[in-house]
Amino acid sequence: MTAESNDKASIPQDRFEIRLSGSGGQGMIFGSVVLCEAIGRAGDKNVVQSQSYGPEARGGASKADVVVSSEEIYYPKAMKLDLLLAMTQEALDKYYPDLKENGMLVVDNTLVTEIPDRDHYARPFTRLAREEVGHIMVANVVALGAICALTDIVPLDVLTDAVLARAPRGTEDRNRKAIEIGYNEAMKLKKK
Amino acid sequence: MTAESNDKASIPQDRFEIRLSGSGGQGMIFGSVVLCEAIGRAGDKNVVQSQSYGPEARGGASKADVVVSSEEIYYPKAMKLDLLLAMTQEALDKYYPDLKENGMLVVDNTLVTEIPDRDHYARPFTRLAREEVGHIMVANVVALGAICALTDIVPLDVLTDAVLARAPRGTEDRNRKAIEIGYNEAMKLKKK
Repeated sequence: MTAESNDKASIPQDRFEIRLSGSGGQGMIFGSVVLCEAIGRAGDKNVVQSQSYGPEARGGASKADVVVSSEEIYYPKAMKLDLLLAMTQEALDKYYPDLKENGMLVVDNTLVTEIPDRDHYARPFTRLAREEVGHIMVANVVALGAICALTDIVPLDVLTDAVLARAPRGTEDRNRKAIEIGYNEAMKLKKK
Repeated sequence: MTAESNDKASIPQDRFEIRLSGSGGQGMIFGSVVLCEAIGRAGDKNVVQSQSYGPEARGGASKADVVVSSEEIYYPKAMKLDLLLAMTQEALDKYYPDLKENGMLVVDNTLVTEIPDRDHYARPFTRLAREEVGHIMVANVVALGAICALTDIVPLDVLTDAVLARAPRGTEDRNRKAIEIGYNEAMKLKKK
C-alpha cells in the first residue's frame, strides 16, 4: 500500500481508499465485496466495503468503495481516492475528480477513450475477458487481477481464493483465468 | 458497533439502520446489497450498504448493514439499530446490544433458541427455505420477504425485482417463492 499524505489529524495516516466504478451490471459490487474479503483475510487491517444509492447516484455510473486502514474506520465512506478503477467513460468522468492528485488511475480502455493527461494504467479488461477468457462477465475479475499486480494491498493467492469462494459454482476456471490475465497484463505495464 | 458518541444533532431524525447478521455463507451480504438496491429504486431515499472486516470482526458472526435516510448519509455505519435480523445464536448474542430499545428484532428460530425477553418476530427461515422451497440457500431471501412484510421500507414487488435481478440465472423461481413464503409467514405474525 502506498503511504499517502493524509494531512488531517482525524484520518489515520495509512488510510487507503479504493473505488471500483463502471456501469450497472459490470460487477463492481461483486468486485468490491471480494476485494474487501480478501484484504480482510490477508492481514490485520480493518476494511469496509460500501455502496450507496440515492437521488445523486441515479444514472449510468455505478460505484462501490473499499476503505482500508490499520485503525478502526470511523468514517467508512471514500473521500479522496487513492485508487480509482474506471470501466466506462461515464464512470471516469464522474469519479475522476474524487481521485487524489497522486492517486492511482486504472482504466479499462476497451470502452474509455478520453483519459486525463496524467499517469495512469490502461488495459482493455473487457476485451481481454471476451477474447482471452471467452466470458465478458469476468471483466471485473480481470480488473481485480490488475489491481492486485499494481498495488500491494493483497497477495494474488488470497485474492484468488476470495474470488473463487464467491464465484457461482461452475465458473471457477474462468474466474481463475481472469485474475491471472489481469495480473499478467498489469505486470507488463509495471515493467515499462 | 458500540454506541459511539453520535447522539449529535447531525444525524437526521428519519435515519433507519438495518443489520442482517448470521454466519458466513448465509448470504447476509447478498441480502443487504439487494435490500439496498430495492430501497434505492423504490423512492428518493438515500441508502448505503456496508460491511466490515477487521480483527474485531473475526469469528463466526457475519453482518452487513443498510442505512436509509432522506438526508445525505454522512455517517454510513450503523450505530444503533432500528432493525436486527439474526440468523444464528452467535449473531444474535453479538449484535443484540446494538439494537435500539424499541428497535425491531427478527429472528430465524431454526437455529436460534435463546431470544431476549422482549418483543420480537421469530420464524424458522432456514427450515422454511429447506422444506417449502427445497433450497436451504434461499433462507436469506425468505428473511428478506419477512422484513418486507414487517416494515414499510420497501414494496414487495420492488424487492422481488431487485432479488431476481441479482439472483444467478436459473434460480429465479426459487427466489420468487422464497420471498413470498417469508412475506406470508411474517404477515401471519403481524396479524396475531
